[in-house]
Amino acid sequence: MNTPQAIQDRYPDEWNHCYGCGRLNDKSLRITSYWTGDEAICNYIPKDEQTAFPGVLSGGVIASVIDCHSLAAASAAFGAQLGIAENEPLPRCVTASLKVDFLKPTPLGPVTVRAHAQEIRGRKAIIISHLFSGSEECARGEVIAVLKPDA
Amino acid sequence: MNTPQAIQDRYPDEWNHCYGCGRLNDKSLRITSYWTGDEAICNYIPKDEQTAFPGVLSGGVIASVIDCHSLAAASAAFGAQLGIAENEPLPRCVTASLKVDFLKPTPLGPVTVRAHAQEIRGRKAIIISHLFSGSEECARGEVIAVLKPDA
Repeated sequence: MNTPQAIQDRYPDEWNHCYGCGRLNDKSLRITSYWTGDEAICNYIPKDEQTAFPGVLSGGVIASVIDCHSLAAASAAFGAQLGIAENEPLPRCVTASLKVDFLKPTPLGPVTVRAHAQEIRGRKAIIISHLFSGSEECARGEVIAVLKPDA
Repeated sequence: MNTPQAIQDRYPDEWNHCYGCGRLNDKSLRITSYWTGDEAICNYIPKDEQTAFPGVLSGGVIASVIDCHSLAAASAAFGAQLGIAENEPLPRCVTASLKVDFLKPTPLGPVTVRAHAQEIRGRKAIIISHLFSGSEECARGEVIAVLKPDA
Protein backbone atom coordinates (compact mmCIF):
# COMPACT_ATOMS: atom_id res chain seq x y z
CA MET A 1 0.00 0.00 0.00
CA ASN A 2 1.31 3.45 -0.87
CA THR A 3 1.58 6.04 1.87
CA PRO A 4 -0.75 8.86 0.85
CA GLN A 5 1.01 12.12 0.09
CA ALA A 6 0.17 15.23 2.11
CA ILE A 7 -1.25 18.10 0.08
CA GLN A 8 1.53 20.34 1.45
CA ASP A 9 4.14 17.94 0.03
CA ARG A 10 2.78 18.80 -3.42
CA TYR A 11 3.28 22.55 -3.00
CA PRO A 12 6.07 23.97 -5.19
CA ASP A 13 9.36 24.18 -3.28
CA GLU A 14 9.62 27.97 -3.64
CA TRP A 15 6.30 28.41 -1.80
CA ASN A 16 6.83 25.74 0.85
CA HIS A 17 8.31 27.77 3.74
CA CYS A 18 5.13 28.42 5.72
CA TYR A 19 5.49 28.58 9.52
CA GLY A 20 2.25 26.61 9.84
CA CYS A 21 2.78 23.87 7.28
CA GLY A 22 5.98 24.39 5.27
CA ARG A 23 7.97 21.29 4.42
CA LEU A 24 11.05 23.48 3.96
CA ASN A 25 10.68 25.44 7.22
CA ASP A 26 12.58 23.61 10.01
CA LYS A 27 10.50 25.30 12.70
CA SER A 28 7.11 24.86 11.04
CA LEU A 29 4.19 23.43 13.03
CA ARG A 30 3.98 20.77 10.26
CA ILE A 31 0.24 20.99 9.78
CA THR A 32 -0.52 18.32 7.17
CA SER A 33 -3.64 17.72 5.13
CA TYR A 34 -4.88 14.77 3.09
CA TRP A 35 -7.41 14.95 0.29
CA THR A 36 -10.09 12.28 0.12
CA GLY A 37 -11.65 13.37 -3.17
CA ASP A 38 -14.27 15.67 -1.70
CA GLU A 39 -12.83 16.90 1.56
CA ALA A 40 -9.48 17.39 3.26
CA ILE A 41 -8.59 15.87 6.62
CA CYS A 42 -5.98 17.19 9.05
CA ASN A 43 -4.95 15.49 12.25
CA TYR A 44 -2.97 17.82 14.49
CA ILE A 45 -1.30 16.95 17.78
CA PRO A 46 -0.60 20.12 19.78
CA LYS A 47 2.55 20.65 21.79
CA ASP A 48 2.20 20.95 25.58
CA GLU A 49 2.90 24.69 25.48
CA GLN A 50 0.14 25.46 22.94
CA THR A 51 -2.41 26.37 25.57
CA ALA A 52 -4.97 29.16 25.91
CA PHE A 53 -5.59 28.27 29.54
CA PRO A 54 -4.26 25.18 31.32
CA GLY A 55 -5.71 22.12 29.53
CA VAL A 56 -7.28 24.17 26.71
CA LEU A 57 -5.85 24.50 23.18
CA SER A 58 -4.74 27.98 22.06
CA GLY A 59 -7.14 29.89 19.81
CA GLY A 60 -4.20 31.22 17.79
CA VAL A 61 -3.05 27.66 17.10
CA ILE A 62 -6.61 26.67 16.15
CA ALA A 63 -6.70 29.63 13.73
CA SER A 64 -3.33 28.60 12.28
CA VAL A 65 -4.43 25.00 11.76
CA ILE A 66 -7.71 26.09 10.15
CA ASP A 67 -5.87 28.60 7.93
CA CYS A 68 -3.20 26.22 6.60
CA HIS A 69 -5.61 23.32 6.28
CA SER A 70 -8.20 25.40 4.43
CA LEU A 71 -5.56 26.62 1.96
CA ALA A 72 -4.55 23.01 1.41
CA ALA A 73 -8.17 22.01 0.79
CA ALA A 74 -8.45 24.90 -1.69
CA SER A 75 -5.25 23.83 -3.48
CA ALA A 76 -6.50 20.28 -3.80
CA ALA A 77 -9.95 21.41 -4.95
CA PHE A 78 -8.41 23.70 -7.60
CA GLY A 79 -6.04 20.89 -8.59
CA ALA A 80 -8.98 18.52 -9.08
CA GLN A 81 -10.89 21.14 -11.06
CA LEU A 82 -7.87 21.85 -13.27
CA GLY A 83 -7.19 18.13 -13.80
CA ILE A 84 -3.69 18.30 -12.32
CA ALA A 85 -2.09 14.85 -12.17
CA GLU A 86 -1.25 13.36 -8.74
CA ASN A 87 2.49 13.57 -9.32
CA GLU A 88 2.38 17.25 -10.37
CA PRO A 89 2.72 20.28 -8.04
CA LEU A 90 -0.51 21.85 -6.86
CA PRO A 91 -1.32 25.53 -7.33
CA ARG A 92 -0.73 27.56 -4.18
CA CYS A 93 -3.39 29.76 -2.59
CA VAL A 94 -3.32 32.72 -0.22
CA THR A 95 -5.86 33.71 2.43
CA ALA A 96 -8.09 36.69 1.71
CA SER A 97 -10.05 36.25 4.94
CA LEU A 98 -10.20 33.87 7.88
CA LYS A 99 -13.08 33.51 10.30
CA VAL A 100 -13.12 31.16 13.25
CA ASP A 101 -16.08 30.59 15.56
CA PHE A 102 -14.99 29.06 18.84
CA LEU A 103 -17.98 26.94 19.80
CA LYS A 104 -16.56 25.59 23.05
CA PRO A 105 -13.14 25.20 24.71
CA THR A 106 -10.98 22.68 22.80
CA PRO A 107 -9.18 20.28 25.14
CA LEU A 108 -5.38 20.29 24.74
CA GLY A 109 -4.96 17.05 22.77
CA PRO A 110 -5.26 15.67 19.25
CA VAL A 111 -7.76 17.40 16.98
CA THR A 112 -9.16 16.54 13.57
CA VAL A 113 -10.22 19.16 11.05
CA ARG A 114 -12.46 18.35 8.09
CA ALA A 115 -12.61 20.94 5.33
CA HIS A 116 -14.51 21.17 2.06
CA ALA A 117 -14.97 23.73 -0.71
CA GLN A 118 -18.41 25.25 -0.33
CA GLU A 119 -17.96 27.25 -3.51
CA ILE A 120 -15.33 27.77 -6.19
CA ARG A 121 -15.74 30.75 -8.46
CA GLY A 122 -12.92 31.80 -10.78
CA ARG A 123 -9.73 32.09 -8.70
CA LYS A 124 -11.59 32.17 -5.36
CA ALA A 125 -12.72 29.31 -3.11
CA ILE A 126 -14.80 29.42 0.08
CA ILE A 127 -13.62 26.68 2.41
CA ILE A 128 -15.69 25.56 5.39
CA SER A 129 -14.00 23.57 8.12
CA HIS A 130 -15.00 21.81 11.30
CA LEU A 131 -12.54 21.13 14.12
CA PHE A 132 -13.24 18.16 16.38
CA SER A 133 -11.84 16.94 19.66
CA GLY A 134 -13.01 13.33 19.64
CA SER A 135 -16.60 13.55 18.40
CA GLU A 136 -17.18 17.09 19.75
CA GLU A 137 -17.11 19.95 17.26
CA CYS A 138 -15.23 22.73 19.09
CA ALA A 139 -14.54 25.28 16.33
CA ARG A 140 -15.71 26.13 12.84
CA GLY A 141 -13.82 27.99 10.14
CA GLU A 142 -14.65 29.91 7.00
CA VAL A 143 -11.74 30.85 4.78
CA ILE A 144 -11.75 32.72 1.51
CA ALA A 145 -8.78 31.33 -0.40
CA VAL A 146 -7.49 32.86 -3.62
CA LEU A 147 -5.09 31.35 -6.14
CA LYS A 148 -1.72 33.04 -5.75
CA PRO A 149 -1.31 35.56 -8.60
CA ASP A 150 1.67 33.62 -9.99
CA ALA A 151 0.28 30.14 -9.17
CA MET B 1 9.30 57.77 34.67
CA ASN B 2 7.48 54.52 35.35
CA THR B 3 7.67 51.80 32.77
CA PRO B 4 4.08 51.22 31.63
CA GLN B 5 2.72 47.79 32.53
CA ALA B 6 1.56 45.45 29.77
CA ILE B 7 -2.11 44.49 29.95
CA GLN B 8 -1.07 40.82 29.97
CA ASP B 9 1.01 41.43 33.10
CA ARG B 10 -2.23 42.33 34.88
CA TYR B 11 -3.94 39.02 34.02
CA PRO B 12 -4.44 36.76 37.05
CA ASP B 13 -1.61 34.22 37.36
CA GLU B 14 -3.91 31.21 36.99
CA TRP B 15 -5.01 32.44 33.52
CA ASN B 16 -1.60 33.62 32.29
CA HIS B 17 -0.33 30.55 30.42
CA CYS B 18 -1.39 31.49 26.89
CA TYR B 19 0.87 30.34 24.06
CA GLY B 20 0.39 33.70 22.38
CA CYS B 21 0.85 36.07 25.30
CA GLY B 22 1.22 34.20 28.60
CA ARG B 23 3.72 35.62 31.08
CA LEU B 24 3.90 32.19 32.74
CA ASN B 25 4.38 30.19 29.51
CA ASP B 26 8.13 29.87 28.78
CA LYS B 27 7.47 29.21 25.09
CA SER B 28 4.87 31.92 24.57
CA LEU B 29 5.20 34.34 21.64
CA ARG B 30 5.07 37.14 24.30
CA ILE B 31 2.54 39.29 22.49
CA THR B 32 2.22 42.37 24.72
CA SER B 33 -0.37 45.12 24.67
CA TYR B 34 -0.48 48.58 26.22
CA TRP B 35 -3.63 50.55 26.96
CA THR B 36 -3.68 54.27 26.16
CA GLY B 37 -7.09 55.02 27.63
CA ASP B 38 -9.11 54.51 24.46
CA GLU B 39 -7.14 51.99 22.43
CA ALA B 40 -4.57 49.25 22.90
CA ILE B 41 -1.24 49.19 21.07
CA CYS B 42 0.84 46.09 20.34
CA ASN B 43 4.27 46.10 18.74
CA TYR B 44 5.28 42.63 17.60
CA ILE B 45 8.62 41.62 16.12
CA PRO B 46 8.27 38.30 14.26
CA LYS B 47 10.88 35.57 14.36
CA ASP B 48 12.67 34.74 11.09
CA GLU B 49 10.80 31.44 10.76
CA GLN B 50 7.32 33.03 11.04
CA THR B 51 6.83 33.27 7.30
CA ALA B 52 3.92 32.56 4.98
CA PHE B 53 6.18 32.83 1.93
CA PRO B 54 9.78 34.08 1.96
CA GLY B 55 9.74 37.69 3.18
CA VAL B 56 6.03 37.63 4.09
CA LEU B 57 4.62 37.29 7.63
CA SER B 58 2.55 34.16 8.41
CA GLY B 59 -1.22 34.59 8.41
CA GLY B 60 -1.49 32.25 11.39
CA VAL B 61 0.88 34.48 13.37
CA ILE B 62 -1.09 37.57 12.31
CA ALA B 63 -4.27 35.85 13.53
CA SER B 64 -2.58 34.95 16.83
CA VAL B 65 -1.36 38.52 17.39
CA ILE B 66 -4.79 39.96 16.58
CA ASP B 67 -6.50 37.40 18.83
CA CYS B 68 -4.33 37.96 21.93
CA HIS B 69 -4.15 41.71 21.42
CA SER B 70 -7.92 42.02 20.98
CA LEU B 71 -8.55 40.04 24.17
CA ALA B 72 -6.14 42.37 25.96
CA ALA B 73 -7.97 45.43 24.59
CA ALA B 74 -11.24 43.89 25.79
CA SER B 75 -9.81 43.19 29.27
CA ALA B 76 -8.60 46.77 29.56
CA ALA B 77 -11.90 48.17 28.28
CA PHE B 78 -13.89 46.06 30.76
CA GLY B 79 -11.42 47.06 33.50
CA ALA B 80 -11.98 50.76 32.74
CA GLN B 81 -15.75 50.25 32.65
CA LEU B 82 -15.71 48.40 35.98
CA GLY B 83 -13.42 50.99 37.59
CA ILE B 84 -10.68 48.48 38.37
CA ALA B 85 -7.63 50.16 39.91
CA GLU B 86 -4.32 50.07 38.01
CA ASN B 87 -2.66 47.81 40.55
CA GLU B 88 -5.51 45.26 40.51
CA PRO B 89 -5.77 42.21 38.21
CA LEU B 90 -7.88 42.66 35.08
CA PRO B 91 -10.79 40.38 34.20
CA ARG B 92 -9.85 37.78 31.58
CA CYS B 93 -11.77 37.30 28.34
CA VAL B 94 -12.14 34.45 25.86
CA THR B 95 -12.66 34.62 22.11
CA ALA B 96 -16.10 33.78 20.76
CA SER B 97 -15.11 34.59 17.18
CA LEU B 98 -12.11 35.89 15.28
CA LYS B 99 -12.17 37.36 11.78
CA VAL B 100 -9.12 38.58 9.93
CA ASP B 101 -9.15 40.28 6.54
CA PHE B 102 -5.75 40.11 4.88
CA LEU B 103 -5.64 43.33 2.87
CA LYS B 104 -2.17 42.83 1.40
CA PRO B 105 0.94 40.74 2.11
CA THR B 106 2.58 41.83 5.39
CA PRO B 107 6.36 42.13 5.10
CA LEU B 108 8.29 39.95 7.58
CA GLY B 109 9.32 42.61 10.07
CA PRO B 110 7.96 44.64 12.99
CA VAL B 111 4.22 45.27 12.99
CA THR B 112 2.00 47.51 15.08
CA VAL B 113 -1.60 46.63 15.91
CA ARG B 114 -4.07 49.25 17.18
CA ALA B 115 -7.28 47.89 18.71
CA HIS B 116 -10.36 49.56 20.16
CA ALA B 117 -13.70 48.44 21.56
CA GLN B 118 -16.35 49.21 18.96
CA GLU B 119 -19.09 48.07 21.32
CA ILE B 120 -19.43 46.69 24.83
CA ARG B 121 -22.72 45.12 25.76
CA GLY B 122 -23.06 43.14 28.98
CA ARG B 123 -20.25 40.56 29.06
CA LYS B 124 -19.44 40.90 25.35
CA ALA B 125 -17.11 43.29 23.53
CA ILE B 126 -16.55 43.75 19.80
CA ILE B 127 -12.92 44.68 19.22
CA ILE B 128 -11.73 46.14 15.91
CA SER B 129 -8.03 46.09 15.14
CA HIS B 130 -5.75 47.38 12.42
CA LEU B 131 -2.34 45.82 11.73
CA PHE B 132 0.31 48.05 10.18
CA SER B 133 3.72 47.47 8.65
CA GLY B 134 5.16 50.98 8.76
CA SER B 135 2.29 53.19 7.64
CA GLU B 136 0.63 50.50 5.50
CA GLU B 137 -2.45 48.76 6.89
CA CYS B 138 -1.99 45.11 5.92
CA ALA B 139 -4.68 43.31 7.94
CA ARG B 140 -7.83 44.10 9.86
CA GLY B 141 -9.40 42.12 12.68
CA GLU B 142 -12.80 41.79 14.30
CA VAL B 143 -12.95 39.81 17.51
CA ILE B 144 -15.95 39.07 19.69
CA ALA B 145 -14.53 38.80 23.20
CA VAL B 146 -16.53 37.55 26.16
CA LEU B 147 -15.70 37.84 29.84
CA LYS B 148 -14.56 34.45 31.11
CA PRO B 149 -17.44 32.87 33.06
CA ASP B 150 -15.39 32.88 36.27
CA ALA B 151 -13.67 36.24 35.59
